[in-house]
Amino acid sequence: MNVFVVGIGLIGGSFAKDIKRIMPDSKIYGIDASDAHLEEAFTLNLIDVKSSYEDLGVADMVIVSIPVDVLVTELPKILDAVHDDCVVFDGGSTKNLICKQLEEHPKRRNYLACHPIAGTEFSGPSAAIEGLYEGKTNIICEVEKTAFKLQEKTIGLFREMGMRIRYMNPEAHDRHIAYVSHLSHISSFMLGKTVIEKEKNERDIFDMAGSGFESTVRLAKSSPAMWTPIFKQNKENVVETLDEYINNLESFKQLLLSDDYEGIYNEMNDTNKIKEILNGIPLNK
Amino acid sequence: MNVFVVGIGLIGGSFAKDIKRIMPDSKIYGIDASDAHLEEAFTLNLIDVKSSYEDLGVADMVIVSIPVDVLVTELPKILDAVHDDCVVFDGGSTKNLICKQLEEHPKRRNYLACHPIAGTEFSGPSAAIEGLYEGKTNIICEVEKTAFKLQEKTIGLFREMGMRIRYMNPEAHDRHIAYVSHLSHISSFMLGKTVIEKEKNERDIFDMAGSGFESTVRLAKSSPAMWTPIFKQNKENVVETLDEYINNLESFKQLLLSDDYEGIYNEMNDTNKIKEILNGIPLNK
Repeated sequence: MNVFVVGIGLIGGSFAKDIKRIMPDSKIYGIDASDAHLEEAFTLNLIDVKSSYEDLGVADMVIVSIPVDVLVTELPKILDAVHDDCVVFDGGSTKNLICKQLEEHPKRRNYLACHPIAGTEFSGPSAAIEGLYEGKTNIICEVEKTAFKLQEKTIGLFREMGMRIRYMNPEAHDRHIAYVSHLSHISSFMLGKTVIEKEKNERDIFDMAGSGFESTVRLAKSSPAMWTPIFKQNKENVVETLDEYINNLESFKQLLLSDDYEGIYNEMNDTNKIKEILNGIPLNK
Repeated sequence: MNVFVVGIGLIGGSFAKDIKRIMPDSKIYGIDASDAHLEEAFTLNLIDVKSSYEDLGVADMVIVSIPVDVLVTELPKILDAVHDDCVVFDGGSTKNLICKQLEEHPKRRNYLACHPIAGTEFSGPSAAIEGLYEGKTNIICEVEKTAFKLQEKTIGLFREMGMRIRYMNPEAHDRHIAYVSHLSHISSFMLGKTVIEKEKNERDIFDMAGSGFESTVRLAKSSPAMWTPIFKQNKENVVETLDEYINNLESFKQLLLSDDYEGIYNEMNDTNKIKEILNGIPLNK
């Protein structure tokens, strides 16, 4: 099987590693906007061939793992170039715009809209990890629009990688993911900003930071090139989550200002139930 | 050496484990407001003796690891009860109030004001970990007020546990710790609250949460009984950090609303330097 990975970084590279393990006979073709990344992916043995769009005619499977703004321009071109039995899937963190855009595409049945909930704060070919998808959730949108044979083959592969499959419509996906992923990134980036601003003249104050700060601010290491277009595409939902988050912080501050420590205790106690909720979430580490 | 641990949970229990390793001949006495905790600590071999304040006269070292509100009432009593060569140190996350309160205590020279920057989101005797303090920072306030012989002995022990020692005045400690620790806890608690509120009728939506959400919301599992008095004692500094954090979130939202994606990119890109800053922080995992 000829597998093309368009955008050979953390997400695409980790798919390549798992596919090589599950199907040792597959041939992995890499395509990347950055020659340096492509070269690095080749050196790291993530891909067998440095390739380009011109070769897409031989593809049996195309994994498109690029920022969501370029996904919108590239996916239609990729679908145009592939043969009728080829499946094309993406890993974008927003699903609504891309599904709308491909609605009328003559090869819509060759596309499977995916969002594997997996990753780390690192990026690029060297960040790829074998087994990244083990135990993770893959959200598939509008599965009924994909040819059944291609669904079967691709979802079978996801299951072999150890993924749990969830089906959802693109609007619900974007609304919920704003809460459980996009908001976390903003809260973390702004926490990092607040502390850096305050402590800019006292860098060694970070000696005082413990693993709690590190954990809360981890996502502030994420790639701006990846996240800016996500926030843009999911603007409406993200603004709503931000409004609610800011309101909750403001209320907490008011409790403090009015010395309502019973109220503060209750706020935290009620939120402690996140423990049980998180027990369902698989971790990387 | 007779070592007393008042409050035998994560912090005190981890000290007990390291002391047993470094000084196998020491005898560890446990005191706890909860009989169940004391019994558990004994069963887990964290302590050799279940003890009470009446025995404090034989103590050579007392570790007081209890919430900061009870610290204020208990430390003076503990100091009253110990002999002249006994050192008493605490692990409280606020230092200003307690240092002020003990300023005129006749046994002030027996007290060493400490804040070991270590811990996990768990609590109680079963959360104690050997080696918790390895590579961590211990902030000591007003070291000059402690008898030199007692400083020497106690700081020597901290160094044997692998801790880095930093000296700071109590006001500076409370101001900086508000940024690098207390704010992280509030941002995490309020993130958890925002998501739970929104998704309360759709619990299975948490399948969509990945390790990024888990990391950012980890501190929301922390103990309200421990954190409420910390926020109370450090109210002024915490309110200031919250104001700045809320302003930064509000600005980010305004950038989104005005479609200033270059501005959003720059905000995130500037904050990425947290990577280098964090390289100095030792982690538990």
